Amino acid sequence: MSTMKRASTATGRSLEEMMDAAMGGDRLALARMLTMVERGGKSSAKVAQVSYRSKQRGQTVGITGAPGAGKSTLVEKLISSAREGGKSQVAVIAVDPTSPFSGGAILGDRIRMQSHSGDNGVFIRSMASRGHLGGLSMAVPEAMRLLEAVGMDPVVVETVGVGQVEIEVASATDTTVVVLNPGWGDAIQANKAGILEIADIFVINKADRPGAKEAVRDLQQMLDMAFSLGIHPRMVEQPDGMSQELWHPPVLETVASTGEGVAELWSAIESHGVYLEESGEGESRRRKRAERSIALVLEAEMASQLDKIRSGQMYASLVDATESGRSDPYEAAEKLIREVGYDR
Amino acid sequence: MSTMKRASTATGRSLEEMMDAAMGGDRLALARMLTMVERGGKSSAKVAQVSYRSKQRGQTVGITGAPGAGKSTLVEKLISSAREGGKSQVAVIAVDPTSPFSGGAILGDRIRMQSHSGDNGVFIRSMASRGHLGGLSMAVPEAMRLLEAVGMDPVVVETVGVGQVEIEVASATDTTVVVLNPGWGDAIQANKAGILEIADIFVINKADRPGAKEAVRDLQQMLDMAFSLGIHPRMVEQPDGMSQELWHPPVLETVASTGEGVAELWSAIESHGVYLEESGEGESRRRKRAERSIALVLEAEMASQLDKIRSGQMYASLVDATESGRSDPYEAAEKLIREVGYDR
Repeated sequence: MSTMKRASTATGRSLEEMMDAAMGGDRLALARMLTMVERGGKSSAKVAQVSYRSKQRGQTVGITGAPGAGKSTLVEKLISSAREGGKSQVAVIAVDPTSPFSGGAILGDRIRMQSHSGDNGVFIRSMASRGHLGGLSMAVPEAMRLLEAVGMDPVVVETVGVGQVEIEVASATDTTVVVLNPGWGDAIQANKAGILEIADIFVINKADRPGAKEAVRDLQQMLDMAFSLGIHPRMVEQPDGMSQELWHPPVLETVASTGEGVAELWSAIESHGVYLEESGEGESRRRKRAERSIALVLEAEMASQLDKIRSGQMYASLVDATESGRSDPYEAAEKLIREVGYDR
Repeated sequence: MSTMKRASTATGRSLEEMMDAAMGGDRLALARMLTMVERGGKSSAKVAQVSYRSKQRGQTVGITGAPGAGKSTLVEKLISSAREGGKSQVAVIAVDPTSPFSGGAILGDRIRMQSHSGDNGVFIRSMASRGHLGGLSMAVPEAMRLLEAVGMDPVVVETVGVGQVEIEVASATDTTVVVLNPGWGDAIQANKAGILEIADIFVINKADRPGAKEAVRDLQQMLDMAFSLGIHPRMVEQPDGMSQELWHPPVLETVASTGEGVAELWSAIESHGVYLEESGEGESRRRKRAERSIALVLEAEMASQLDKIRSGQMYASLVDATESGRSDPYEAAEKLIREVGYDR
């Protein structure tokens, strides 16, 4: 911790002080740090300086699936299971890339999580896209890391759809749960969306509806095929050969509204956590995640360099010079790069 | 020309000397310079230094359309029309992003252009993707600029498909000709592929086949609608209001195999060239092209910085440090950027 500069914040407290407060249960301090993470750039870099240096780890769990699959209710019940199972500090991040609101401002989140509103052991936060460079792809992993660092375990991230953000979030969590419905098309649909490949656990929610058994069966068949063909990318052979038992994503049935099957889901999530640590896959995923997070910062840095170049004073005149035969694209680019300099 | 460094080449001649030779009709010098353009990086930067500084301009014409639409035959006949119309130096670039061959090595090109093989006023070159940074998106516009600079007019660029490369090439030429067939689905298909928006001239080739009249009619209707709704992006209102007559893409019929309608196509291409200069749109397109070419060099530069960073000595250890809590993504990225330095 010796190399860390003491960055002071708007409240006059250093980030180390805020971090200590957040670890001691100060939810306001934690909320402020999450807002800094959402802001991006230097603001989130300051938080990263303390959060990434924490040795505290929690299991991060992504819950994804089509809108209307019942994810919110499922998450609410899942948190109860985790709390009953002995978890003392549980966090939920509700990610909505389409909403302009964030910071817990989404009404629905506050309503649906009412059952946990009196529980100090549950921390809930909504995150939406603020449009800054890197956006949610950077902010969500950094928020998860912060929540782990202050002692939250598990950190559950719920996303609203089955798009690029969901794939990104899935690649940033330890365990990805994909929620389907009996009525939500069929397993083929799930395959098309590419979620067969990102799931560690499948849940057929609303399993009291017609078609649940068929959905489970179809999905199982597809998984067996993917497994035997070795095309499930998360099922990699260990360097020491076949001695390692690979994770075969289970297909569970739940009825979130009644809580049926949710304890089993929580148990499967914990089993997957154990598998990750015992197999060494947890570490290899964390390494990939570290690579990805560095790459995102580098890409954001490059993109902001480009923006700086395009808004510089010389830009228009060098475009003119290239168009009219007084310069060429290479010379113009070189001059522009030299103009912005490297005074970051 | 005073600021220009004299770059010497493998043959011992400076690029200025090669350029002078190429302008004087030395086809070997021109071919060597095109190979340098294809090579990318510093090699193409040297050529750009001389080619972009030339005041010589020619009309660049993109010929695009689905494979099998008869583009090659059409281009062959179009060149005859241009030559008969008084053009003394005509160039053709045949772009094939799927072929590993380039430099005129594509057998088909040599065969189909046989009718021009004895004509010193026609220069033909094939270009294929060499896989370097920026690839054809950079190489094709730079090759066109070089051909213009040595006195070629028109410079015709033929592409094989209707994909991203074609859209890129179209945005880099003065005049884009989209070739359709009566049998090639219908005009709706053309609209779906996004080519309605990039065409300055439409050609229904193989117009002696059934369905030609219907194809022309359908396309005309779609264009009239696009025109009246103002959704054709190349039809922008001039700053001085509606006084400017906008270009309305004509729909022509050709039978390339017999040459029918090709003279009219050449005449339409020339008319579009006149329109571009009189309306001022030619200059605004050239300006956009200069911007695009600078952006491509900048992006290639950024991408090569990222590659350099990822292959650096510190990369693996900084990923480790971030994973294990001794660093964070921002600090790691900063150190990596500092490591590669800015010693370009």
